[in-house]
Order: sequence, then structure tokens, then C-alpha cells
Amino acid sequence: MTRSRLGLLHELAQPGDPILFIVLDGIGDLPIAGKTALSRAKTPNLDKLARHANLGLLDPVNRGITPGSGVGHLSLFGYDVYEHGAERGVLEALGVGLDLSDGSVAIRANFVTLDGKGNIIDRRAGRIPSDEAERIVKKLAKGIKEIDGVKVDIRHIKEYRFAVVLRDKKLGGNVDDTDPQKNGVPPLKAKARDKQSQRTAKLLDLFAAKAAKVLKDEPKANGVTLRGIGKQPAIPTFQELYGMRGAVVAHYPMYRGVARLIGMDIVDVQGEGEAMPEKIAKVQEIWGKYDFVFLHVKKTDSSGEDGKQDQKAKIIELFDAALPKLLALKPAVVSITGDHSTPATMKAHSWHPVPVLVKGPHMRTCPATRYTEDECLKGALGRFRGMDLMAELLAQAGRLKKFGA
Amino acid sequence: MTRSRLGLLHELAQPGDPILFIVLDGIGDLPIAGKTALSRAKTPNLDKLARHANLGLLDPVNRGITPGSGVGHLSLFGYDVYEHGAERGVLEALGVGLDLSDGSVAIRANFVTLDGKGNIIDRRAGRIPSDEAERIVKKLAKGIKEIDGVKVDIRHIKEYRFAVVLRDKKLGGNVDDTDPQKNGVPPLKAKARDKQSQRTAKLLDLFAAKAAKVLKDEPKANGVTLRGIGKQPAIPTFQELYGMRGAVVAHYPMYRGVARLIGMDIVDVQGEGEAMPEKIAKVQEIWGKYDFVFLHVKKTDSSGEDGKQDQKAKIIELFDAALPKLLALKPAVVSITGDHSTPATMKAHSWHPVPVLVKGPHMRTCPATRYTEDECLKGALGRFRGMDLMAELLAQAGRLKKFGA
Repeated sequence: MTRSRLGLLHELAQPGDPILFIVLDGIGDLPIAGKTALSRAKTPNLDKLARHANLGLLDPVNRGITPGSGVGHLSLFGYDVYEHGAERGVLEALGVGLDLSDGSVAIRANFVTLDGKGNIIDRRAGRIPSDEAERIVKKLAKGIKEIDGVKVDIRHIKEYRFAVVLRDKKLGGNVDDTDPQKNGVPPLKAKARDKQSQRTAKLLDLFAAKAAKVLKDEPKANGVTLRGIGKQPAIPTFQELYGMRGAVVAHYPMYRGVARLIGMDIVDVQGEGEAMPEKIAKVQEIWGKYDFVFLHVKKTDSSGEDGKQDQKAKIIELFDAALPKLLALKPAVVSITGDHSTPATMKAHSWHPVPVLVKGPHMRTCPATRYTEDECLKGALGRFRGMDLMAELLAQAGRLKKFGA
Repeated sequence: MTRSRLGLLHELAQPGDPILFIVLDGIGDLPIAGKTALSRAKTPNLDKLARHANLGLLDPVNRGITPGSGVGHLSLFGYDVYEHGAERGVLEALGVGLDLSDGSVAIRANFVTLDGKGNIIDRRAGRIPSDEAERIVKKLAKGIKEIDGVKVDIRHIKEYRFAVVLRDKKLGGNVDDTDPQKNGVPPLKAKARDKQSQRTAKLLDLFAAKAAKVLKDEPKANGVTLRGIGKQPAIPTFQELYGMRGAVVAHYPMYRGVARLIGMDIVDVQGEGEAMPEKIAKVQEIWGKYDFVFLHVKKTDSSGEDGKQDQKAKIIELFDAALPKLLALKPAVVSITGDHSTPATMKAHSWHPVPVLVKGPHMRTCPATRYTEDECLKGALGRFRGMDLMAELLAQAGRLKKFGA
């Protein structure tokens, strides 16, 4: 009998203590004048936790690999992303509450501004605010209920982004993006990568043409591009794998979508932006009802993407100030890490290993004293692959039986 | 051409120096007042060896996985336990010298105390001593020579434990344990997990009923439970893989069984308990006749299981006192490690990484100075998976050719 790594975890899974899992998105950084966002930030509460925890560094996927957010999170949840993955359209559609279990095709769509010749002059439609975009999405949904007999669902995501779902399980999901990634040219024609997806490509071209008609009077959002096209993959859920009921407390649809893909409940968090106090309140509210609570903090990543290390350090300090409320819940196991690094110097995701903290009831002594890149390098957890973190957490929570005689 | 990890080792194997391999069972610990059993123990000889060795930490199977003893040892011997494994019945039957190469089914049986209604009132039959149990095993073997035409072998293991073998290669080995794991209920009926094992299950129920009749006048051992049922798996031997003749010096049948499963010779060690001087004498006696000598020290694990860190430290000190006699044999390569951690704080096996020491003729300098959990964390060997240790030892012993041009 040959077992897979995940198969073994499934075989050994048993009930145990609850786990609080905190992702500081893109937390890893590179030094500016010798300091990273984490080492620059004043974090008395995190420091105190770190002194009683085990620290280390993780490679979300593998050395040198820069993960997208979906890939990074799936790794942290224990999945092998060489095998399992989902298109962004699927994750965002799931994240805004669209059901894809019927085999539909999901698309992440962007509003764009087209000139008189049909060339793109703004790939983000002037970054229209969410409330305006919501109005336009409603208009679009009213104007396009079906394409060539296939029912279409349209739902707003955030700002210029929205989700489209084609409700026909016979459609293939292998179609290239129509976003040309530059201005001055028209959106690309949809191009199928296999025979089963040819009709999907045709429907998407019809959709884009019809959308341009419905939106023709909009000053900014008068066209669309279509991206991250795909179908919900068959992936074992958290419950199936580990026997844990999970819940996600996240603001951004993308992260809710990843969590929903693997069967977690989505907890509704109101308000634009980071909304840290609302998130903490939600965790407090649901604590005790779930085996695994996943709290996602986004703005560490956004400030890295903006190249603002000072701002990233401030977000970390905001999180540090909220940490005592989370620890007051007395989680048996708490872990803090990131889905990837987003160095302010690079203004982008990177491959650098990510600091990780694990605090449970059965700790080795750890020579690392702060949750920073430099200290985590000498931590008791060593350096390991993201997909191996979950076994560590399950073990600390008493959720894995002994393997074999 | 795709090679497996073990396939490559086999391809590169060549004759070389002998290896002394010492397993301190369950050696890894967690701190109590800042100290583990290893850091608490006074070990001048081990310390001296460590200063000239390379140290590190190994995960017997993988992060988070708590191995049973069989699994832990197979990993140390280089096997991939996701693929290769054996039921406890097989290991213990092999360990007491029963042959299973004919495709027989092996069972680890326990004597239990049953009340008048057939409910278990003591799952270990009052922990009867080995000499009393041996008498009862003889009586049982005399009373049950065959079941429904299938020859039965019965042999004592230790205390209330004995091995049963059903001599029919057509029988399947996939039957659940009949031990209900609690008192106040009768032993479970044997339940087959596949069609080929249905007759096995029936034979085992008949065996249990017949055993209860034979034992009906015994005050304590008047019933049996059956566990760890299985057949000897096809697994490449040490000799086949690495071209090494191996021998095991161990007291407990379980560990002798693992060694025999992979083709090592079993060296007879007399006497109950740890018998450290006898074991050392045996190693001295056979040294030079084998390529690989595996010395097993059990009581580090037992004292961890009993929650006695002081006692664990004392066992380590006993071993330390004996170490010079082993080193006087001048083994070209010596390695000391454990098959898993057994922290006294947990009174059980755990997933925590295990200190490992390797001393051979070709050593890097090593910043770790003592064979303890904390020091091994910064050792030159780093942290690695148990199944990768054997390659390191083979290399030090000059037993692996260069790979490729």
C-alpha cells in the first residue's frame, strides 16, 4: 500500500483542540537600511507571544517559487499545489458567494475604458469606486441574462472587478485571458486551449460584445476583459481531509474563495478596507463553533505592493495591538504566517521564505526571540515547505493519531 | 530513466567500512524547567564523542507525524514508510523467531481477565509476570494445535503478550483488532476488511472461543484479545538494498522483528529488562562479523512513557558509562539517534524531531557541542527526514560510489 502525504494525514486525523490560524498576507520583506517591516515595527504583544512559541521560515511552495495568493494559501492549508489549484475566476466567484458545484465556468472580469476604435485606454476603468461599479454591474446583469441559451450570473467583486458565471456544465474551462496586459490595443479574442472549450470561447466573445453594447453610454466602464477562466476543481475539503470544520474571517473575495473551495464557512465581514476591529469581533463571535478559524489580514501585502515599508510596519503594529484580544480566546494552538513575501523594495510578491510562528501545548525551547525574518532563521521549526505546516498544527492540537505499530 | 531514492542507493552501493548504529528509543524530549532528559543527564563520554561528530535533528517520518516504533525504525533504515510497513503482529512474531516467509497470518495476542459474563475486567490480565505467562502459553499451545484444519503456532512474547500464527498462505491478513480498548465489554468479534480475509476472521473467532475454554481455570489469564493482524510484507532486505550483512542487538521482540523483517540476524540477549552490560558484550562479541550492527536501548522510551524525565536521564547516563566500551571497537562510522521522541511531559510518542549524531572519517566542523535537542538544532547535519540518514552513514562508510559521470 502506498500512501500519499495527504492520505496519511487523513488516515491519522482525529478530533482535537481548536486552531487559530492567522495569515498576514505578504508578510515577508527585504531589508531597507537593515530593517524589514517586521523588525521595524514595534510589536510588544507579538514579541511576548514569540518568546513562548516556536519560530521558523517556510517556503510557501518551494525555494525560488513566487506564489500567487491562491497557490500560497492552498499550500498553507496542506495541499500540494503541484497537483491542486484553481483559476482566479473560480476563487473570486466562490468568494462573492456564487455556487460553482454544478460544473459552471467562472470568469474574473474587469471593466475597462475603450476609445472610439475599441482600443483599451484604461485597463482598470479609471479605478471606479465600488459603489459606482455596483450600479454598473446591476445594469450589466439586467442587460445580459443569457448568452446563446446559456444562463449567465454576474456579481460585483470590488472596484472595477466582477465575476461572471456561465451556467452549463458541458462547457470546457480552458480558455485564455482576453486582457492584453497593455493599453492601445483592443481586448483579445477568447482562445480555447482544447476542443471542449471552443464553445466557451465563442460565448465569451459574444458576452464581451454584448457587454460593450449595454455599457456604451458609460464614460469609464464601457468595455470588459475576461481573466482567470476555469471550473471548480475536484479538491478534498478540509472536513474530508482533517475532519475539521473551518471558517474564514477575510474581507477580500479572493481569500474567502480559497477557503470556500476547501469547504470552510465564510463569515461575513462588513466595511471596505482592512476593518481590523470588525474582523477581531467576528473571530470572537465564532470562536468555539469551529475547529479551525482562519483570520486573513490583507494590508500587509497591499503596502508591500505599494512599496511602502513604513505603512507595512504600521499595519503590523495595528495587528499587534489587536493580538491580545485574539489570545484572550485562549486558543490551544495559534499560528501566524504569510502566504508569501511581498518586499516593499520589489513592490510585488516574491519567493523569499516567510516567517512562521507556532504556539501550542508541546513546545521545544526556541533560540529565536522575535517574529522577524532574521530571528526566524534560527528558530526551532527550521525551514520547511508550506504544505508541511498543517501537520505541525494538527499534531500540536492533538489531531493526529500515532502512525503504525 | 526515473530512479527511486532507494533505487539509487542500491545502484551506488559498494563494500566499505562497518557501521555501528545505536537507537536510544524515544530519546527526544520536551523541556521541564528548561531541561530535557538529554540536557539534564551528565554524559562526559557522549559529550566527548559529540565534539568530534556532526549533529542534527531528524523527523522520523515527516513533520507532525508521530511514528509507532516499527514505522520509526523502518524510516531510520532508509525505507519509505508511506509505502512499506508491517503490522505489529508480524513484527513481534518475527521477533520471537517465528517464520512468516510461507505467507502465514501473524497476530499479536494479549491475555485478558474476563468476568463471568465474558466482559473484560483487565486488558492486561493483571500484568502477569513472564514466567507465569510462559506456563500459560505452553498450556494454550498444547490445547490448540489447529483450528478448522489450519495449523496454529503460539509463542510467548513478554508478560501478558504472545504471538499466534495461522499457517495457511491462502488466508487474507486484513482483519481488525478484537481488543475493544476498554474494560466492561467483551472482546470484539474479528472483522475482515476484505473478502479474502473472511475465513481468517472466522478462524480467529474460533481461536478466541477455544482459548477461553482451555484457559477457563486460570484466575487472571482466562481470555484473549487479538491485535496487529497481518502477513509479512514484500520488502527489500538490507542485504539486497545496500549489500550489508546486518545484526540486531535488542531485547524486545518488536525491534528484533523489525530487524529480521529486513533480513538482519538476531543476536540472542538474555535476561529481563535493559541488560545493558549483556548487550554491550554481545556487540563486542559480534563486531567484525557484520557490516552493520544495530544496538537498541529501550528504557529511554519506557521512562518517557512513564512520565519520568529523571529516570530517562539516568538511563542516558547508564548508556554514557557503557559508551567507551563500544567506541573501543573503533567503528569507522558510529551513529546515535532515536526512532521518535517520547517526551516525559506527554507520556507518549510524539512528532518532535529527534537528535542525531554521526561520526565518521570525513567530518565538517559542527557548531553544536552536545547531543541535546537545543544543540542539535544548530548542528552541521541540519534537519532532515529519517529515511535520509542511511545515505549519510553509507557515504561516511565509503559504501556509496559516485553517481554518474
